[in-house]
Amino acid sequence: MRALRKLEPGPGFVMVDVPIPEVGPDEVLVEVRATSICGTDLHIYEWNPWAADHVVPPITVGHELTGVVVDRGANVSEPEIGRLVSVESHVVCNSCAWCRTGQGHLCPNTAILGVHRDGAYAEYVAVPAQNAWPDPPDMPLSIASLQENFGNAVHTATIPNIAGRKVLVTGSGPVGVMTMAVAKALGARAVYATDVSDYRLELAAVMGADVTLNPARDNINERIAEITDGEGVDVLLEMSGASSALEAGFAALKPGGEAALLGLTSDAFPFDLDDNIIFKGATVYGVVGRRLWQTWLEMRGLIRSGAVDLAPVVTHRFDLDDYAKAFELMQSGECGKVVMFPDPSYADGPLS
Amino acid sequence: MRALRKLEPGPGFVMVDVPIPEVGPDEVLVEVRATSICGTDLHIYEWNPWAADHVVPPITVGHELTGVVVDRGANVSEPEIGRLVSVESHVVCNSCAWCRTGQGHLCPNTAILGVHRDGAYAEYVAVPAQNAWPDPPDMPLSIASLQENFGNAVHTATIPNIAGRKVLVTGSGPVGVMTMAVAKALGARAVYATDVSDYRLELAAVMGADVTLNPARDNINERIAEITDGEGVDVLLEMSGASSALEAGFAALKPGGEAALLGLTSDAFPFDLDDNIIFKGATVYGVVGRRLWQTWLEMRGLIRSGAVDLAPVVTHRFDLDDYAKAFELMQSGECGKVVMFPDPSYADGPLS
Amino acid sequence: MRALRKLEPGPGFVMVDVPIPEVGPDEVLVEVRATSICGTDLHIYEWNPWAADHVVPPITVGHELTGVVVDRGANVSEPEIGRLVSVESHVVCNSCAWCRTGQGHLCPNTAILGVHRDGAYAEYVAVPAQNAWPDPPDMPLSIASLQENFGNAVHTATIPNIAGRKVLVTGSGPVGVMTMAVAKALGARAVYATDVSDYRLELAAVMGADVTLNPARDNINERIAEITDGEGVDVLLEMSGASSALEAGFAALKPGGEAALLGLTSDAFPFDLDDNIIFKGATVYGVVGRRLWQTWLEMRGLIRSGAVDLAPVVTHRFDLDDYAKAFELMQSGECGKVVMFPDPSYADGPLS
Amino acid sequence: MRALRKLEPGPGFVMVDVPIPEVGPDEVLVEVRATSICGTDLHIYEWNPWAADHVVPPITVGHELTGVVVDRGANVSEPEIGRLVSVESHVVCNSCAWCRTGQGHLCPNTAILGVHRDGAYAEYVAVPAQNAWPDPPDMPLSIASLQENFGNAVHTATIPNIAGRKVLVTGSGPVGVMTMAVAKALGARAVYATDVSDYRLELAAVMGADVTLNPARDNINERIAEITDGEGVDVLLEMSGASSALEAGFAALKPGGEAALLGLTSDAFPFDLDDNIIFKGATVYGVVGRRLWQTWLEMRGLIRSGAVDLAPVVTHRFDLDDYAKAFELMQSGECGKVVMFPDPSYADGPLS
Repeated sequence: MRALRKLEPGPGFVMVDVPIPEVGPDEVLVEVRATSICGTDLHIYEWNPWAADHVVPPITVGHELTGVVVDRGANVSEPEIGRLVSVESHVVCNSCAWCRTGQGHLCPNTAILGVHRDGAYAEYVAVPAQNAWPDPPDMPLSIASLQENFGNAVHTATIPNIAGRKVLVTGSGPVGVMTMAVAKALGARAVYATDVSDYRLELAAVMGADVTLNPARDNINERIAEITDGEGVDVLLEMSGASSALEAGFAALKPGGEAALLGLTSDAFPFDLDDNIIFKGATVYGVVGRRLWQTWLEMRGLIRSGAVDLAPVVTHRFDLDDYAKAFELMQSGECGKVVMFPDPSYADGPLS
Repeated sequence: MRALRKLEPGPGFVMVDVPIPEVGPDEVLVEVRATSICGTDLHIYEWNPWAADHVVPPITVGHELTGVVVDRGANVSEPEIGRLVSVESHVVCNSCAWCRTGQGHLCPNTAILGVHRDGAYAEYVAVPAQNAWPDPPDMPLSIASLQENFGNAVHTATIPNIAGRKVLVTGSGPVGVMTMAVAKALGARAVYATDVSDYRLELAAVMGADVTLNPARDNINERIAEITDGEGVDVLLEMSGASSALEAGFAALKPGGEAALLGLTSDAFPFDLDDNIIFKGATVYGVVGRRLWQTWLEMRGLIRSGAVDLAPVVTHRFDLDDYAKAFELMQSGECGKVVMFPDPSYADGPLS
Repeated sequence: MRALRKLEPGPGFVMVDVPIPEVGPDEVLVEVRATSICGTDLHIYEWNPWAADHVVPPITVGHELTGVVVDRGANVSEPEIGRLVSVESHVVCNSCAWCRTGQGHLCPNTAILGVHRDGAYAEYVAVPAQNAWPDPPDMPLSIASLQENFGNAVHTATIPNIAGRKVLVTGSGPVGVMTMAVAKALGARAVYATDVSDYRLELAAVMGADVTLNPARDNINERIAEITDGEGVDVLLEMSGASSALEAGFAALKPGGEAALLGLTSDAFPFDLDDNIIFKGATVYGVVGRRLWQTWLEMRGLIRSGAVDLAPVVTHRFDLDDYAKAFELMQSGECGKVVMFPDPSYADGPLS
Repeated sequence: MRALRKLEPGPGFVMVDVPIPEVGPDEVLVEVRATSICGTDLHIYEWNPWAADHVVPPITVGHELTGVVVDRGANVSEPEIGRLVSVESHVVCNSCAWCRTGQGHLCPNTAILGVHRDGAYAEYVAVPAQNAWPDPPDMPLSIASLQENFGNAVHTATIPNIAGRKVLVTGSGPVGVMTMAVAKALGARAVYATDVSDYRLELAAVMGADVTLNPARDNINERIAEITDGEGVDVLLEMSGASSALEAGFAALKPGGEAALLGLTSDAFPFDLDDNIIFKGATVYGVVGRRLWQTWLEMRGLIRSGAVDLAPVVTHRFDLDDYAKAFELMQSGECGKVVMFPDPSYADGPLS
């Protein structure tokens, strides 16, 4: 089969022919129908310091996908052959204290698809049966593929108390704008979005942001003070990892507020714990991955009920063979979610 | 009356004669029986940058005290004249959104005794009646005085889930060791204490720490790993404000753990949000003041029941006139709680 | 002034002339502009066993109102004269452990307007200044008056986790249908309403119920099973106090679900704790009054933002002098909220 | 092997020879070293209405046990052969929404050892590998066996906020007195125990109850009022299922209090929701089984640290062949935990 792989340390990927993966006794083999690009994939493509530290080539990359179950190991009773599934990319051990207590997203033995084991940018991928989440057969493949990333948004927005609250979401990339949609669906009184890209702020507005702010143009703190009667926001959802966004976000947070942090900052940076957290009596949550499997159930409800419409997030589709163009677009930032199709006849929209 | 005052910007205090304060309609006049020294008082004495920014001389300093109600304003029905009271040092507005919702400790209109209005190092002090917390008449005056500070310990230790958990308390000053005693009383499985002072670590052990660690001698992370079977601690209570303590503390925290931060760091410093909070899925609480009045009720229960014995925390007593000696001792760090008596005949132990 | 009073035990009210109330030092005098009818008022009118046990004539009845501050006691600094205010009907002591800890709604010393002290069905009423909640000057008087009752709805719907959940509200009287509107505004996935009155179920649909069920016609449990894929509801909000509604509601609740109970059952009745609560691992919340003052802040946000539109709840308006017709209508059940006007020139809609 | 079985509907058990159970691919075979008696086992022995409704003979009874792993199915990697394990009696499906979200104790597909599948009163029992909880090799067998029941106590006491609170435990049978020990270990300010048996109240005092009350002698509500300064208890832990205990317990609960209910009442009975729950603003938790596997981890910590000493709970030991004497003793109520040994040479104390 064809697989997009990192063959050795350094930038770029290579499309190569490799054998179809063998299926372990507790695994299923998934024929990949659609596979989407995450910021992490871009880091691996560019081979940034994080990637150099965490990824050991050779490896097939990619971790967001949907596809059809075509083979199963001896111990697997579900999902059945032929079922459309999305895949949870974190393969956990099921036996540590975290897995044993409903906190599998914190499993210290986690292996991530496309980072620690062969991933999704290929015609086939083998994953543990429990990681294959059955989808409705008529779910659009782009949406099915990006559910893994949507799960980050749902996880983040379901930790603080959102209902009836004023919420600032810093960062309007794909996961940021999906988070805004979730916040609105969960009863946020108002959602304020920031980003340095007007392209992305337009997407934020489409996905439900009531106010969009561009720090290149707007004094974030003055504007937030204005629109909140000087009180600040109840909740900060930080999706960018930019230190400037963290600073503006915490400055906007009212005393007693809650902040959930998903964006990775890559490095330590000067952070004022006194003003940002202590004097405010703030509560701050670190967010990683998705609750296994609470978040997947919540996603199902949000999508099925129509409370969240993810269609506008998917802005571009590519033949997997055109991956270079797809990654170039990702680098430009002028896109929402980018989805690739190993077999372009399955594309659920026009290809770029 | 005599009052210890900061008359102008710069180090030191001066003992001067001033009129007895007038009592407002909602206030009581308290004859001060005992008044203790907090780290903040030392900052004001030394006139560090924080003090220069926040304190406007001339002002009578001091904010921890106990005394007897000797006069009351027209609207006051309780506490009655003659009642022994301890004083909550945060004077709040009762009308903001925080005060209206049981979060008075976050009132943006807070005025603090000895910082924003005349304080406790004097023969008399006027405070709002609601800030005068009735004590049992036979409570030792040293204990009654330090309750305000004990409240910081109780507030900190009652935010995370402590019962049955392994708890690291970084910083073994007076509020740190009181926090350890509270953690034990609330069912902590084990309490680990750190400090750079062996004097203070001894006090930590007396107050209930199961293990004491001195970073000058011990590799904190290796030792914590050893004594927790490599798992780390469930809870971090940070009482020191030292960046090294914060780093060691977060490194010791297990995935999914909780951290409550009371110690002030004074300045921004390089802090790794990814490793400390985000990847861990940690929950971090900023702690300020005391819950009004939940914390005071909890203090009453802990003291009255004998669950916490605060007597060992009080290591030195001084005549208020000997304040210079008291502050010199505070600067040395070779002390627990230091209590001063405007009328030394009320001292509940030998004077230094 | 005119006042509608219960002069002696037994059914009915009498309109009499009484002096304008004197204003205590911490009170304001409110000129009543609108005053609405609650189920409790009907019980007092009819003199049911609860009323006979709790109300001591002679007393001016009524506890839901809005009006203008026309006089203030010596200690009152706000609200100012001329301000439109709604009134919290529970007068609490401010000094018990509950009032001191943000749980004033549980104050054991509560005195209720129109039950324990002279109430709202009059030209003027005196209330503690803290019970007079400032409204926007342009708030419709009917809405301003019923806020007290709306607060029951907001309190009930903000206790369980509503966002993204399937919610059953049993009882579609005025407080029930307002609760449905709040549940939708707070992100409920779906709201199911029950009532024996089709008139009320129509109002439920207008206020946001996705499905309405009449036990006279529908097998509640079969229908709930159908529309929830056999899973049951996540949340039960019980607003009726009817034992049949409690039985059907708990039967519909899924394992691990949450139930908030506001409706009063009047009497003990055979209740199966095993099946309803224990085997389900359910969490059940008793709800009384409004959180002081969290709920009032939440109401303000829900109304001001347009998240909840209360206009359809007000179905009838009367001149206070026509109170007999108003109570007759209440007895019929063919109404939503009924509002009376001491001075009918202030009516914000056509009088019945 | 020998097995104690219910062969047909009706009272009593029969000791018979049956084949050693076959081990499924995900199961382990445990050689039973000790097996203890629960109230449920007594119900099955006596064949009360609950047993007649739920148990389908023929079946080997018993669900509390410890033993050594002697065989494993093909898919099992842990626990290893030779390991001492205790057994979680609830066999859950791992695939329902509850199992998938850390709420396995609510799995609707639960099969219980000795109720729905062959159980522990035998020389060998086959259980899923995940239900075999590794114990320290030197754990006394009586303690290891009763952990399943201890888990009910831990689950109940870890739901409400116990630390620093006054706790009433109604019912001083084995699970009741273990709950008292847990409440003390978790920092309860005071624990009050009730029971109609003075034998059991003595055990309650040994296990940590500060005050014991016998309703045959004491007016529970007056006594609770006395010892709580008229305030009532913060927390009720109901372990008896007796309607009189529920009534006394709720009457003693203070406004805003929390109640966790584990004892089964068998039947509906007249319960006053208004006074017990609604007017009090109480929170009530139904408790079933043990959190899988949070509770087992908590048990390990409580036992290993010495915070709870379960030795006094085990009052009697029997040769399994003497089961009739053991059940007779259980019927008398004059016992704590009763443990039986298929091979009496493993008894960790003198046999009765």
